[in-house]
Amino acid sequence: MILGRVTGNVVASQKYRDYEATKLLIVQPIELDGSDWGEEVVAVDGVDAGPGDRVLLVQDGFAASMAAGKSMAAIDMAVIGVVDEVKFF
Amino acid sequence: MILGRVTGNVVASQKYRDYEATKLLIVQPIELDGSDWGEEVVAVDGVDAGPGDRVLLVQDGFAASMAAGKSMAAIDMAVIGVVDEVKFF
Amino acid sequence: MILGRVTGNVVASQKYRDYEATKLLIVQPIELDGSDWGEEVVAVDGVDAGPGDRVLLVQDGFAASMAAGKSMAAIDMAVIGVVDEVKFF
Amino acid sequence: MILGRVTGNVVASQKYRDYEATKLLIVQPIELDGSDWGEEVVAVDGVDAGPGDRVLLVQDGFAASMAAGKSMAAIDMAVIGVVDEVKFF
Amino acid sequence: MILGRVTGNVVASQKYRDYEATKLLIVQPIELDGSDWGEEVVAVDGVDAGPGDRVLLVQDGFAASMAAGKSMAAIDMAVIGVVDEVKFF
Repeated sequence: MILGRVTGNVVASQKYRDYEATKLLIVQPIELDGSDWGEEVVAVDGVDAGPGDRVLLVQDGFAASMAAGKSMAAIDMAVIGVVDEVKFF
Repeated sequence: MILGRVTGNVVASQKYRDYEATKLLIVQPIELDGSDWGEEVVAVDGVDAGPGDRVLLVQDGFAASMAAGKSMAAIDMAVIGVVDEVKFF
Repeated sequence: MILGRVTGNVVASQKYRDYEATKLLIVQPIELDGSDWGEEVVAVDGVDAGPGDRVLLVQDGFAASMAAGKSMAAIDMAVIGVVDEVKFF
Repeated sequence: MILGRVTGNVVASQKYRDYEATKLLIVQPIELDGSDWGEEVVAVDGVDAGPGDRVLLVQDGFAASMAAGKSMAAIDMAVIGVVDEVKFF
Repeated sequence: MILGRVTGNVVASQKYRDYEATKLLIVQPIELDGSDWGEEVVAVDGVDAGPGDRVLLVQDGFAASMAAGKSMAAIDMAVIGVVDEVKFF
């Protein structure tokens, strides 16, 4: 998984049923030192993260749908933790 | 997941049975600000999206087949929502 | 999923049992306008495609094994449709 | 799968329940000759690896959650072995 | 899936239980004409391949674990066939 920083959210007409109560975040992928890399993505919020939070982001559809508390939802990216500290040995 | 814009559709001889009633869209991946990036892809339509709609696109085979209402279909990309608004904090 | 054009096949000693009756195609990924991109791949044939056919290619192991009529086979790419027409709105 | 070297760990507020007892490692992907490539990733520790260990890293959500002893956890990368020797024929 | 050539093996302390009897191969991805591309990977051996064999390589965790005869092992790449011939139409 990778780290990211919550930078916004997406409001969507969620016609597909498993999405109805889901919160969608915009997450900027970041390096371990906090610097940005790559493009922002849209992820389901599994931990009620807030603006600016440094978060753990999983990228697999099957795993991510579990994090959102749904067994079969069409989700391919989810925020599953808020990071407190990154330590190098 | 990523955002996209519906730009066309694909008509296919769908010999594999799980595809028979499936609508296939051409979707151009877009940035959060609406600008294009990457190549257009073919995705199953899970929300009855129309021409020009800004949509949410999932990319996992297992998750995507769920969005299309099929538990085991051979699908690896699906449109699962129509986007109303993108907000940055 | 992406489009491709059937350009050859692969004959393999298929020691792993789920492969015994499987036909393997060489598929060149193509753009929506028919031009080539990327490298040719090996895919399981789920629709009995022929030489030169323009086909739909799924890329997920789990989904692809379903298209080949096997629930647990070790397959990560499959041809699941023959394309008749690509239309832009 | 690929090889990596354990270089640190991540402490996270793990609000999503399947993560509560999970140890998260920072792993630098390495070539077979031991040289670095790509960016460090965050992986669940399935084998109690230590600082500097050369490890085997799997990258699939479904498979990786199994390695962590959880059937449905939101995990997309896991350390599943410690490498003793790399041999070329 | 892609083609590869077996170039070595990896000996690992396999603390995660599903790995105990598994043989790990080093495989160099190759083009259809036999030339190398990309970096060598580590794959589970599903067909008892030998040094120098030209093989079929699947890259999905779920599918690959099936090829190794395990339903839930932490495997994301497996050798599932030995190639006899590549033919272009």
